[in-house]
Amino acid sequence: MIDAIGLDADDTLWENEGFFREAETRLAELLADYCDTEAVARHLLQVERQNLSLFGFGIKPFSLSMIQTAIEVTNNRISGEGIGRILQIGREMLAHPVELLDGVSETLEALAGKRLILITKGDLLDQRRKVEASGLASRFEAIEIVADKTPADYRHVLSRYSIPPERFLMAGNSVKSDILPVLELQAYAALIPHKLSWHLEHAEEPASPQFHRLTGISELPDLIARIEDG
Amino acid sequence: MIDAIGLDADDTLWENEGFFREAETRLAELLADYCDTEAVARHLLQVERQNLSLFGFGIKPFSLSMIQTAIEVTNNRISGEGIGRILQIGREMLAHPVELLDGVSETLEALAGKRLILITKGDLLDQRRKVEASGLASRFEAIEIVADKTPADYRHVLSRYSIPPERFLMAGNSVKSDILPVLELQAYAALIPHKLSWHLEHAEEPASPQFHRLTGISELPDLIARIEDG
Repeated sequence: MIDAIGLDADDTLWENEGFFREAETRLAELLADYCDTEAVARHLLQVERQNLSLFGFGIKPFSLSMIQTAIEVTNNRISGEGIGRILQIGREMLAHPVELLDGVSETLEALAGKRLILITKGDLLDQRRKVEASGLASRFEAIEIVADKTPADYRHVLSRYSIPPERFLMAGNSVKSDILPVLELQAYAALIPHKLSWHLEHAEEPASPQFHRLTGISELPDLIARIEDG
Repeated sequence: MIDAIGLDADDTLWENEGFFREAETRLAELLADYCDTEAVARHLLQVERQNLSLFGFGIKPFSLSMIQTAIEVTNNRISGEGIGRILQIGREMLAHPVELLDGVSETLEALAGKRLILITKGDLLDQRRKVEASGLASRFEAIEIVADKTPADYRHVLSRYSIPPERFLMAGNSVKSDILPVLELQAYAALIPHKLSWHLEHAEEPASPQFHRLTGISELPDLIARIEDG
């Protein structure tokens, strides 16, 4: 039996990566006099990778990385006005309305008999804002906003709610964050790919009987029924 | 009986505000050609207040607010190099060693018979880093990093650990965050003032028999003994 289902939030329940890509496009336009779009994207990714362990995940780290990128690719020639516009891009991202992905609401409804835990990493305040704005908070027994999604982080969440790993399934769009660490605990994992994914989240799909790849979140109730039928 | 004690972290267990003040001084030096120290401090505070609900607490919001301040007080004349130095100030804050305050380690030792919960607001990753670097993690039954410290946030923590409010005491340096919301739940609260406090944390001390003002954390075990003796 699967008693409890963990659900990732960004790009599993609602759009996220798309807003980062739009921001990147706006940054590249701002820097077009100095650098082509491709080079901006490449430099930004490198800066983000460098800053990840110190800054963590989310829009504020991304804003700081965009500013650093602008300084570096322009050799300090970016204007104060240009930096101000980058601050504004970050601010707009933080205030962006939440856009639920297709099938999310119906699927949560269909899974209402299970214990549902939202497990998302990133920024406490911003994730909390999105949970509230999504209107989905009441569907979940608990909302867990974690600094990272390592096996230890999942173990901590499962133990907090007394969920045995063999009765837990995690569903999300990132092989690296939602699948691999969960399989390590001998729990089930379902990948729900999103059309966009962040380069720093890339990982190879595993070969494991506990791993399942879906094409959309609407397939989740059927998958769980199949697992329970053995 | 007091079964459980909540302890704030920044400026209760370890130094924090001092590093923000140092950063502010460095920012003012950087902007000295445009603006005097007082005016920088005033403008920064105003920007922080404006950004608080969108950005939340911590070093990354502070870095973004420093950058905004630099742009605004220089009328966009700040150089890319100057902005780069502000990014560097933020980066150094994020990597700063943790400095425990006097008496903290002995006091936690003396309170070891109680359930101890660390309750801190701010940035998930940065607070987690500091807890780990402090060497104090094992003294606590739980570490709760919250987005804010409203009565609802405290109620959530107390219910998570099944702690009745009338058996809970919160100790910290902020009247606004550590004292008032806790008194609202009919729990006990002990103020341990720190020599520095952030202007946006200011609030009047309450008149309540459940409220106690200490001069240092070392007085906490005696206070608890006195409350328990009725």
